[in-house]
Amino acid sequence: MIAPYKTRIVTAPQPGGPDALRLEEITLAPPGHGEILIRVAAAGVNRPDVIERMGFYPPPPGAPKGLGLEVSGTVLAIGGGVSGFDIGQRVCALVAGGGYGDIARAPAGSVLPVPDGVDLVAAAGLPETVFTVWTNVFEAGALKPGERFLVHGGSSGIGTTAIQMSKAHGAVVMATAGSADKCETCRLLGADFVFNYREDDWVEGVKDAGGTDVILDMVGGDYVAKNLAVLNRFGRLVQIAFLKGSRVEIDLMGLMLKRQTITGSTLRARSDEEKAALAAAVRSHVWPWVEAGRVRPLIDTRFALADVAKAHERMDSMAHAGKILLVP
Amino acid sequence: MIAPYKTRIVTAPQPGGPDALRLEEITLAPPGHGEILIRVAAAGVNRPDVIERMGFYPPPPGAPKGLGLEVSGTVLAIGGGVSGFDIGQRVCALVAGGGYGDIARAPAGSVLPVPDGVDLVAAAGLPETVFTVWTNVFEAGALKPGERFLVHGGSSGIGTTAIQMSKAHGAVVMATAGSADKCETCRLLGADFVFNYREDDWVEGVKDAGGTDVILDMVGGDYVAKNLAVLNRFGRLVQIAFLKGSRVEIDLMGLMLKRQTITGSTLRARSDEEKAALAAAVRSHVWPWVEAGRVRPLIDTRFALADVAKAHERMDSMAHAGKILLVP
Repeated sequence: MIAPYKTRIVTAPQPGGPDALRLEEITLAPPGHGEILIRVAAAGVNRPDVIERMGFYPPPPGAPKGLGLEVSGTVLAIGGGVSGFDIGQRVCALVAGGGYGDIARAPAGSVLPVPDGVDLVAAAGLPETVFTVWTNVFEAGALKPGERFLVHGGSSGIGTTAIQMSKAHGAVVMATAGSADKCETCRLLGADFVFNYREDDWVEGVKDAGGTDVILDMVGGDYVAKNLAVLNRFGRLVQIAFLKGSRVEIDLMGLMLKRQTITGSTLRARSDEEKAALAAAVRSHVWPWVEAGRVRPLIDTRFALADVAKAHERMDSMAHAGKILLVP
Repeated sequence: MIAPYKTRIVTAPQPGGPDALRLEEITLAPPGHGEILIRVAAAGVNRPDVIERMGFYPPPPGAPKGLGLEVSGTVLAIGGGVSGFDIGQRVCALVAGGGYGDIARAPAGSVLPVPDGVDLVAAAGLPETVFTVWTNVFEAGALKPGERFLVHGGSSGIGTTAIQMSKAHGAVVMATAGSADKCETCRLLGADFVFNYREDDWVEGVKDAGGTDVILDMVGGDYVAKNLAVLNRFGRLVQIAFLKGSRVEIDLMGLMLKRQTITGSTLRARSDEEKAALAAAVRSHVWPWVEAGRVRPLIDTRFALADVAKAHERMDSMAHAGKILLVP
């Protein structure tokens, strides 16, 4: 007889602002075939969690109940058909839901050992951004060493990770950010050119700096046409979100003449098999950079799980730089 | 002392309709380093020629004077540094301009032998469409055997070539066309699903047929959103023109969820080196299909060079199926 696993989770029964978030306690089933239960050390707060809180991002079918897409912690229980993990092992994982809590359920293929030299709590800030940057910038965008790379929101969780990973790969790195402090963060992480979008004309700035070959964008709206304007011949625009709107106008003429590509993706909609393939690529390509200290999770703030509303307020304020974590 | 090469060319000194076209006679310099002069047997009429006649498609710097982007004929003179060609050899070529005439100038890298079994005049209908389809559908679109492919304007020069090449490659082929006769042409060339866009809802038709993985589109405008709607997960939309307009609206959300790609290109803006690489790929991949009779130039009509205005009227009417040729 296995003891029931009790955990708190965070839901938004009535979608809305940060105060719509509720803590509830549920009982988890033991890990099924191919699954791992993780005793959570910390969970990362991500933009899709905010969209889900607002009611615009329904979880995919079969996802664990509750908000939260990434965790770090220790292995608590291992389901059938899983090899390569031990009880108590330090891990971090991408989860399809329920990351904000005491115990999280993950498909084993989405679980990775914590890289050597990384703090267990801080490791919660790795999966979502590292997986996202790898699949979008390196797979879809096919960034090559020596090419030029631009990321918007350079001080965000995604931005700080993208700057470090593209720099480690040997790219010339450009970033935009919304304050002098945030721009300084981008520079410290290795960005070669940084533009304060509230004060500078980043379009002119990027053009003057020689344009760019790959762009990672989460702004959308009028940024799409601007991105195409600064993208060089054979340039790739990779879209992962659209803070300024998803219905955008583009000019096919420029795209054809410069033979540009627009693509994009979401992480959460992928199958467990796709996530496992991605995790294997991250482990072999990105973990060595992390263990060498070239890519580190940049942590903005930590909140207790009971203060989840404050954590979301911090994300909504756009004042953060790096990852916001929840510690149960 | 080399005799001067005299040739007629076609220009549109005052941009406008077909009656804006003028024949003039000029003297050509001998072939320069890396160039070949071709005694023209026929020239293909292409949509970019119409756009140029209307004043909206300025020739790239250094292009030979006059309209016309592809010819067939025999080698008349060979410049320095060129090997692999003999005087009198039957060839076809992509040219940067001046194809409508008696003699055309081509970079040797853009010249190919006429495939065995193809009539010399009909061979003028090969280069522009074969090069365009290869680079856009097979290189940019990366169409794989067994995948599904949709081409709009299936009875056009590009369309008839795209249907045959994708079929020879082992794809499931879909096409749209604007009349029952044109639809029949598409079917005879091998299309598995054909939709009359004046009578059928091709969006529903393609969806019912299982969607598609690659689309070659020259329509633009409202077709772009419709194309994205019928494009499967990981689908690629390749844009080569925009008869209905180049400023289009797209929805990034759908593109991200289905991980689609939008790209496109033009042929004329490419460097001689790029065209030579493309010609080499065409020769090794497509010429065997042509010599096996699996890809043939479909000829709509032939006009004498002096009747160039009538040839453009025919293209403007959209009544043609296959290539319109000019014979000097």
